[in-house]
This record gives sequence, structure tokens and C-alpha cells, in this order.
Amino acid sequence: MEQHRPLNIVVIGGVAGGASFAARARRLCESTRITIVERGPDVSFANCGLPYHIGGEIQGREALAVQTPESLKALLNLEVRTRCEAVAIDRAAKRVQVRDLSSGETNWLDYDKLMLAPGASPLRPALPGIDDPRIFTLRNLQDMDRIVAATKEGMRAVVIGAGFIGLEMSEQLQRKGLSVQLVELQSQVIPPLDAPMAALLESELRNNGIGLDLGDGIARFEGSETHVRCQLNSGKALDADLVILSIGVKPDSELAQTAGLQLGPRGHIVVDEFQRTSDPAIYAAGDAVETVDRVLEGKTAVPMGGPANRQGRVAADHIFLGEKARPYPGSIGTGIVRVFGIAAGITGWSEKRLLAAKTPYETVTVNDNHHASYYPGAKPLTLKVLWAPDSGRLLGAQVTGFEGIDKRIDVLATAIAARMTVEDLCHLELAYAPPFGSAKDVVNLAGFAACNRRDGLVRHITELPEDPAVQVVDVRGAPLAEAFPPPGRSVNIPFPTLRANLGKLDRNRPVVTLCAFGKMSYFAARVLAQNGFDVASFSGGMKANVDPRSPAKLPNP
Amino acid sequence: MEQHRPLNIVVIGGVAGGASFAARARRLCESTRITIVERGPDVSFANCGLPYHIGGEIQGREALAVQTPESLKALLNLEVRTRCEAVAIDRAAKRVQVRDLSSGETNWLDYDKLMLAPGASPLRPALPGIDDPRIFTLRNLQDMDRIVAATKEGMRAVVIGAGFIGLEMSEQLQRKGLSVQLVELQSQVIPPLDAPMAALLESELRNNGIGLDLGDGIARFEGSETHVRCQLNSGKALDADLVILSIGVKPDSELAQTAGLQLGPRGHIVVDEFQRTSDPAIYAAGDAVETVDRVLEGKTAVPMGGPANRQGRVAADHIFLGEKARPYPGSIGTGIVRVFGIAAGITGWSEKRLLAAKTPYETVTVNDNHHASYYPGAKPLTLKVLWAPDSGRLLGAQVTGFEGIDKRIDVLATAIAARMTVEDLCHLELAYAPPFGSAKDVVNLAGFAACNRRDGLVRHITELPEDPAVQVVDVRGAPLAEAFPPPGRSVNIPFPTLRANLGKLDRNRPVVTLCAFGKMSYFAARVLAQNGFDVASFSGGMKANVDPRSPAKLPNP
Repeated sequence: MEQHRPLNIVVIGGVAGGASFAARARRLCESTRITIVERGPDVSFANCGLPYHIGGEIQGREALAVQTPESLKALLNLEVRTRCEAVAIDRAAKRVQVRDLSSGETNWLDYDKLMLAPGASPLRPALPGIDDPRIFTLRNLQDMDRIVAATKEGMRAVVIGAGFIGLEMSEQLQRKGLSVQLVELQSQVIPPLDAPMAALLESELRNNGIGLDLGDGIARFEGSETHVRCQLNSGKALDADLVILSIGVKPDSELAQTAGLQLGPRGHIVVDEFQRTSDPAIYAAGDAVETVDRVLEGKTAVPMGGPANRQGRVAADHIFLGEKARPYPGSIGTGIVRVFGIAAGITGWSEKRLLAAKTPYETVTVNDNHHASYYPGAKPLTLKVLWAPDSGRLLGAQVTGFEGIDKRIDVLATAIAARMTVEDLCHLELAYAPPFGSAKDVVNLAGFAACNRRDGLVRHITELPEDPAVQVVDVRGAPLAEAFPPPGRSVNIPFPTLRANLGKLDRNRPVVTLCAFGKMSYFAARVLAQNGFDVASFSGGMKANVDPRSPAKLPNP
Repeated sequence: MEQHRPLNIVVIGGVAGGASFAARARRLCESTRITIVERGPDVSFANCGLPYHIGGEIQGREALAVQTPESLKALLNLEVRTRCEAVAIDRAAKRVQVRDLSSGETNWLDYDKLMLAPGASPLRPALPGIDDPRIFTLRNLQDMDRIVAATKEGMRAVVIGAGFIGLEMSEQLQRKGLSVQLVELQSQVIPPLDAPMAALLESELRNNGIGLDLGDGIARFEGSETHVRCQLNSGKALDADLVILSIGVKPDSELAQTAGLQLGPRGHIVVDEFQRTSDPAIYAAGDAVETVDRVLEGKTAVPMGGPANRQGRVAADHIFLGEKARPYPGSIGTGIVRVFGIAAGITGWSEKRLLAAKTPYETVTVNDNHHASYYPGAKPLTLKVLWAPDSGRLLGAQVTGFEGIDKRIDVLATAIAARMTVEDLCHLELAYAPPFGSAKDVVNLAGFAACNRRDGLVRHITELPEDPAVQVVDVRGAPLAEAFPPPGRSVNIPFPTLRANLGKLDRNRPVVTLCAFGKMSYFAARVLAQNGFDVASFSGGMKANVDPRSPAKLPNP
């Protein structure tokens, strides 16, 4: 018979990290007393689903209320105190002061172990007019209910912040019949992506009637009886019936700070690999903590449901399994978003983040279809991978397209967790049948392209040269080259005719090859390099100038 | 300027391995003479797509003819000789004798390096009546054309062999309006899968009108004017207008054998990690070779397009890049098949293969939905993982279900390639947004379940005990327990009432807990173990007894 010393455990916050912690703790010890203190009226709700109920895609609100205090009592024998706020921690006496938000009464709960899972709150900067009741943020079911009540077909919505939630909200409000204008301070949507990878999302938003104000921020709000005017930094004004503010979150770490627990530079609770704070009797998990970056040195904070759930589990394991507990390995930063018919995903570090950190990297971008091109329904996708120049180790990846985005991101997130190199990508043996994949999946192709670069078989450039001394050779078929010419001067030599037309090029001047998707230009660069030319291939091709819905393999040129 | 010594390369076989080899060789050396000798009239065709043209899902035949001799000349400057058969290799003189199948003339081609990519042919055992022209195998476009010409709506087809091609052919012939009877010597479809994982495929086949004769083989064929009678080992007779024979393939290694090259125990060409045969001037790739098993010690042969393509590339790299070439890391054995609305995938070793090899292993099976349960369209899937008991290293995985099968197989194939453990699965940071996944993906859940088992938190059983001394506790809700009772004696104690009803169970007798999907029974086993019971959980649950289309998470019991 298993025996654990019965403990008294208090959990602050009953959503992802806190609820996972409590459930795992109960699995490990039947006799421990577990009390969850939750500020809101709900526990363990599906916060990632909130936008989809607002748009009506998830119809029943009850689908989002995964558990209730009653079901947690029945299933897990948990004491759940909703609408109760933890207001102070007395670490010396190991007790936490809790205020009942309904009655206003406070009392003290003793603990042997305390779990802090307070989450993060939406940023709400102190701008003029910010208190207008028509300006919403979205964190919980009550926020969702307020937005549902405040929205109806034909209204004008302004969404400020084009991150994951901003895009989901834009899509869902448009789905509900509102007109939507999306404002983002940075010059692209989904700022974690590198800009070229965000372009397809932006075109999809525009194609679906979402207005974009990129590179512009909110200066102030001016509320009137009929609407809220959003005054942007540029001087532009957007009139709205309601505003969604989705410009980011900040960790809810005031309680931890007041209790003297160590915080990180951006206010996150500092924890060790078993989720222990600077007080060994207090654990923390979820959006309020910072963790080890699993890709590069240093710390990171990834406010996502997956890490929160798994951190909660690690903490419970450490309390009850002791030496057997496995540490939290850190967060990679994996995210995905769907906007209408498009998806974009990222895992690990982006080019802009590597540049900002002055970390050396190399990168390639490849295009292919999501399954065998000859099988009906093949849709193009674009994959960018980044790696460390010395070791070849993967540092990050981004994928955009129509189908199979989540699959490639998950494969690459697994490869990053395994500290695989781009060489390893070449020989992943992925599932191939025509409805599902290709004999050489785009992930393999990214490995091939990266190795070609590492082996010096090809030089890549990512911007077309302005120097007129450089010969730009467009190796696409003549119709495509004429319909979508590259900027500046170029000569069209379709690839199949290249070997016979080397005489048209000046061997004493550098050459850049370009094509639709980056593959034929690589082939051409190989031909030219072996014929004595100084040549580079335009990475990723002219894709942006063709219909993004066309298959990634064109008929033979 | 890059310089390679111009070589004279001959390639026998112009489909997956041979064509990839030739393309890569050309990329690496413009000045080498590359000649492809192909017995059939086509090169580089999409052989995995053949069944889908027969069923009409891929409409245009030309979609499958990826390249022609002319396009390979234009794009890659390859000399392609179709309808030419290599009949002898003179290794001492480094030349290969080729017969033109049209003219009957033979001549000799000199080589510096020879690539053997002959592929594998469908087995056609010497059974009585096997030569009936209505008995087809499927290897190339001509086989496909013959089957297209021989089939029309209302005909009766018998498919013999329920492997990947047999299932694809059954689906596609049914799609074309034929009635289909599928015969398999083993007692399940897709013999590489463990039997319980094949059950969903079998129900899907039956639901779509495919008749199944499992555990029965073909004894002889009796052709008459009107039909072919398939006499099975059991004595059963099936009358057919046509028969598809898809019982496996054998490597086309006669040429290699005659030339004295080393062959493996099942007739595959033996190669080293750079695809060199026992003659260093001769390379081989594709379905005809055996390679290192990437999971466990020993050799394997995986007749699939992915390995063939990548082996061809490795061989070309070794010829032209020398020391820079990266070895072929071996094959894992990853496969996937779609049958109507179901998919099943496998990577690595199955339980039956591990048992047969007397290799120690442990396994768990978990059920979950393919994306967040609260988001519309969640479909159940079942994931089985196998690992080495000592190290926890993953040895194999199988997935069946409706959506997202390929994603999980690819993640697990990547994890196996990385030599990850089941512990590593717990902390894969996979992409989560409601349309794509869950905060804890089923792959994470498999890691959790495996670790619980490794940590001794739960004992699993995979068959319900017949010993009446064992108490079987069904912890599902009463309606489900009554509608789908387990076989034998059991007591229904819905999980939420278990803690209050421990007195109903005899502490001196062992207990087995069961539920719908294996999760609640684990919860119950934890409660009972901590209350002094000798308890095991029925792994994977009673799933087979509920509608396989119902979501994997039932409402709270």
C-alpha cells in the first residue's frame, strides 16, 4: 500500500496550471487536503476557446466550462473556493489570507505547500479614454459574456493588437457579421513571426474584409454617446461601436512580489526546474512564471496552455514523488493561429529575435505542397527553418499555408526538443501516402536545402540586388516571367534552355537566379556555378507574386 | 569554380530511388554522363498514386507521369533509355549489358559508377490457375491501365492481401462501383499493426460494404468463361470478375545476384551506410536493398518511396561529395493508410514483432480527441506506444482514428529518430489552438501514461480476467455500463461515487477497474491502490464497445 504523508495544499488560481496541479496531486495522494482559491466564478474553463464562442463557432457556452466546483469535488475531492482572492502570504507561518469577494470576509488558510497559478492579465495601458465600457479585454468567461452581449451584426469593431488573440477575435467578430479594423503597432501581424511569413496572413485578412492598420498604435480613445473614436499615433481615427484590446499580457505576480518571492526582469515569478519559487514551500506554474528557454541560454516566458498544464504536473510530482520527479525541461515557444482559410505556426526562435540577441544563425525558406502534388487538393505551404551555423542545430521554424501547418510545426517542435540538426531533418521518415504527405516531405526538403547551403553548394540571397552590375536571371517559363516580372532589370532564360544559353550571360559579372518557389533557381545556380559563374539563388522564390492558392509545383517550365 | 572528375554513370531503374539518384548526381556534377536504363516505358512515375487513378479519385493519368525522358533530358541532361533491360553486369570490365525490349538488340554500356534501383515486384505464387488474365497485380502505369480497362461498375472484385495496397485497392474499387471481397491470410487487416489497432479499420471496411475474409488464404484459382473462382484454404469459394493480388513484394535482385553481389537472407541487395554494394563501384537504393534498422539492432527492408528517394540521394552524395556525404541512418518503417473515413499509421516496431523477436518492451494505449474537445468536430483517436523497459526509449507507435493520424505518426517517427524516451513525450511542446490540438496532446498523454506505469503508479492489464476471484469494477456512468456491459461479472460503481463506496469491495481480493477510454479506470485504480487494494486498470478502456465515432471524452460521469 502506498503511503504519503497527508499534506495541506493551497492552490491560488484554478484554471490551466492550478487545475492540472491539483488533479495530479490528488492522483498522487488521496489523503492530502487540496483547496483551490479562484478569484473568478469559474474553475478549469477553456480559455483558449473564448474567441470561438464569441463568433458562434462554439455554440454552447457550457462547452467551455470544463469543470465546476461540484464536479471537481466529485471527481477529485478538491475544495474549491470561487470568487475568493488570495490577498497575502505569511510565509513564516505558512498561511495565506483569502478574501471572499461576495461577503468581503477574510480568513487565513494554512498550507504545507502553496501553488501559485495566478495567470496573466491583459494589458490595459493608461491611455486617455481607456475606461470607456465599450473597450474590452478577453481573459475569462465573464469577459466573453460581456463581449457577446455587446456585439451584433453590422457593428463596427476595432481590434487593437494583431497577436494570436487579436487575429482570432478579428476572424470571429467578422464571422458574427461585424466590420473589423485591426490595428498593430508593428508593421506586420503576429509579431513573433518574421515579416515575410506574416504576409500570407495579411492577405487572407484583407481578402476576408478585415481592414489592417499596421505600423500604427493607439494614442487615445474618445468616447461619445454613439461610438468610441480610436485615435491612432498616425493621426488616423477609427470609429467603433466596440474595441477589443489584445496587445499582450502581464503576469499577475503582485501577490508573489508582496510576499518577497523572487521575480524576473519582466515581473514573472522565478522558479527552478521543479517549479519551486525562491521559497521551497511555494511552487508556481503557468503564465505568471518564467522558465528556462529550451532552445538557447537564458530565460523565457511562454503564456500558453500547454506549458502551464505541464508545469502544474511537474510541481505535483516533485511534492509527492520526490527524487522520481522529472524536471520541467523549459519552454520552446510553440504557437499556431488559424485565420479564415490560413494557418501560421512558429516554434523556437525567429530571425528577428536572433538578430536582436546578436545570436549567429542561418536560414532557408522552402515551398512545397502539403501532400503529393498529383493527389487532388494539394495546397502550398512555406517553411522557414533557422539553425546554428557551427553545429547545425535547429533554432526555430515557421510555417504558413492552408493545410498541414500544425503537423509540420509539431514535427519541428519535436526536432528542436530533441536538439536535432538540419542534417537530421533530411532523414526523418515521415508518413507517406498520397492523401497525407509526399515521399520527400517539405520538412525533408528544408533539411536538404539547409545542407546544400552548409556544404557550399549554393549561396542564397533574400533580397534582389539593386547593383546593375549583377545579372538577374529569371528561369521561370516565359508566360509566368512576363505576367509577374521581378523588380528591376532581369533576363528570362527558362531553366530547360539555360545550358544552351550560357553565352547570353557575362561570366565576369555576378549572377542571381530566381524562379517561382526557389527550387528551379537553385537548380540554375548549380548549373551556373559549375560553369564558372559567381552565382547566388534568390531564396524562397517570387512566390509572393503568384496566387498563393496555386499549387507549389508548377507544370514543367 | 567547382571541379569534379567527369564520370560515366549508369542507373538501372528510373523510378523513385534511381530518379532521385540521377537528379542529385546532376546537381552535383554538370559534366558527368548519366544514363538511365528502365525496363518499362515510363520513368519517375508516381507509383503510390496508382490505386487512386483506378478509383477515379486522381482523374488525369498524366498527373502520375511525373517526368518523361524528354523532360529529364531538358531539366537534368539525362540520357533515358526506356523499354531497355539490364541483363548482365561485367564487374571486371565495369560494363552493363542492356537489351532493347523493342528491337531485341543488346549492347554494352561502360560505367565508372553503377546504381542499381530495380525495385520490387508483386508476389505471384505458383498456385493453380494463377495465369488467368483476370488476376492482376499493380506495380506500374501499364498494370494500372489494364485494371482500369478491366473494371466497371457492378463487377465483383476479390482483393487478396490486406496490406497497404490491398486496402487502398479495396477502397478505390468500391468507389468505382464494384463489389469487393478482401481476403487476408492473417486474422486482421494491415498485418504490420497490432490486432486491436486494426479493428477500427475492419469496422470501417465492413461499414462501407467491403466483405472481409480474415484468417483465410487463397488455395487456387479456377477460371471459367464467366468468372474466376477463388478457392480459399477454408473451403470457401469467392467468384470474381477480377482479382487483385496484393500479398507483398520481393526485391528484383536477380541481376545483382548473377553479378555476384552480396544479398541478404530474403534476397535484398546488401549495402553499406553510403548505399555501396559489396562492389564499391556499384551502389543500390530503394525497394531492392536492405538497410540498418534505425530502431533496434539488425537489418530491415522498407519498400516505401521515402526511404528509396533518400537512399538515392545519399549514394549520389557519396560519389561526388566524398567525406562530406552523410550516411543513410537506416529505416524506421513508417507507414500510413486511409480507408474511407479512417486512417491508421505505424512507425517503428509493433508489439507482435517485438514478441516474435523476444525483445523486452512495455506498452500503453491512450484515447483522446484529435483537437480540443470543446471545439466542434473533435474526433477520437487511439495511440499505442511501445518502449524499452530499461531505458524508456521509444520503440514504436501506432495511431488510428479519423483526423490528425498523420500528425501523430510524424511526431512519433521524429521522436524515434531522435532516440527519445517516453519521458520526453511528456514535454513535447506541440502547437495548440482549438482547431488544431489540445493543451495536452494525446502524444503528451501517452508519455504521462507510460511514466505512470514506469513509476509504479498503476498496473495495466490488456485482457479482462476470467478468474472469478477478481472483482471487475466498471466505473463508467450507469447508462453506459448498462448499454455496453463488459463480459463476465462486474460491479458498476461510477467513478464520482467510488470513494464513498469502497465498502462494497473486498480488500482481500484483487480488483480490475475499467471504463470507456482507460482514463477513469486509471483514476479509480489510483484511489483503490491508496486505499490498500491490489488493483490493475484495463488499458485503453472498453472503447471497442462504444460507437467509434463518439468523442473520446464523455460528459462527466
